[in-house]
Amino acid sequence: MAFDDEKGLAIAIEEAKKGYEEGGVPIGGALISEDGTVLGRGHNLRFQKDSATLHGEISTLENAGRLKGSVYKNCTMYTTLSPCSMCSGACIMYGVKRVVVGENETFMGAEDWIRKSGIEVVNLNNQECKDLMAKFIKERPQDWNEDIGV
Amino acid sequence: MAFDDEKGLAIAIEEAKKGYEEGGVPIGGALISEDGTVLGRGHNLRFQKDSATLHGEISTLENAGRLKGSVYKNCTMYTTLSPCSMCSGACIMYGVKRVVVGENETFMGAEDWIRKSGIEVVNLNNQECKDLMAKFIKERPQDWNEDIGV
Repeated sequence: MAFDDEKGLAIAIEEAKKGYEEGGVPIGGALISEDGTVLGRGHNLRFQKDSATLHGEISTLENAGRLKGSVYKNCTMYTTLSPCSMCSGACIMYGVKRVVVGENETFMGAEDWIRKSGIEVVNLNNQECKDLMAKFIKERPQDWNEDIGV
Repeated sequence: MAFDDEKGLAIAIEEAKKGYEEGGVPIGGALISEDGTVLGRGHNLRFQKDSATLHGEISTLENAGRLKGSVYKNCTMYTTLSPCSMCSGACIMYGVKRVVVGENETFMGAEDWIRKSGIEVVNLNNQECKDLMAKFIKERPQDWNEDIGV
């Protein structure tokens, strides 16, 4: 049986919450293989590390470490928020099999581009993910804009 | 007068050479504003830092640090090699004005996607960039494949 997407997203949400508690943007991710092995998990570290590139998914890929290209092909990238162009491009470059997003109402990333690249995209439309981002954006609108280059 | 693209690429090439000398993939980048200010420069650090995400352009953006979104809009990203999907997506996310590539014969990145996003792409068709990559790929073909997720 395939790994349960809700379980994968739950790990990404844990990461997002950890990020919020650290004073960061509450977006988290997890890279999980088809047998359920968590290869990497991470969260946005813009404010924690003064980083311009450690979005949730980039952080997740970084924490997964150097892997053979073939490993990614059987993985799903779970992320609490629809991935921006950079993070979408990272999923495409490594050729993950699927991308599962918590939601895309707060921000619509490059999902079309991911699909056109032959990768399945699933939106779980998760209320907790939406609430986390709504809270952050209300508290720190400029910080959110900075994170997406606005 | 606009900043000279050959000068911008020369900085990226310096970075690529530094990377090669360190035992890394010889790809370098520089983020330069219209008045010629070098906001960031960097090179691929996959092998130096066991990093799955520090490609030349990501490294360059990371070294430029946290910037307001408006700053990127007047910048050119110089890179010795056509940017992969991740790095192209990063340029699109931040909305740089131009992307100048040293070459795209060794590897054709997501230049079409960058152009479709309204960003100018210029290819300087530089022989030194091609030679650097040809040497690396001949010496370490598997390491090159790993870097682009093959």
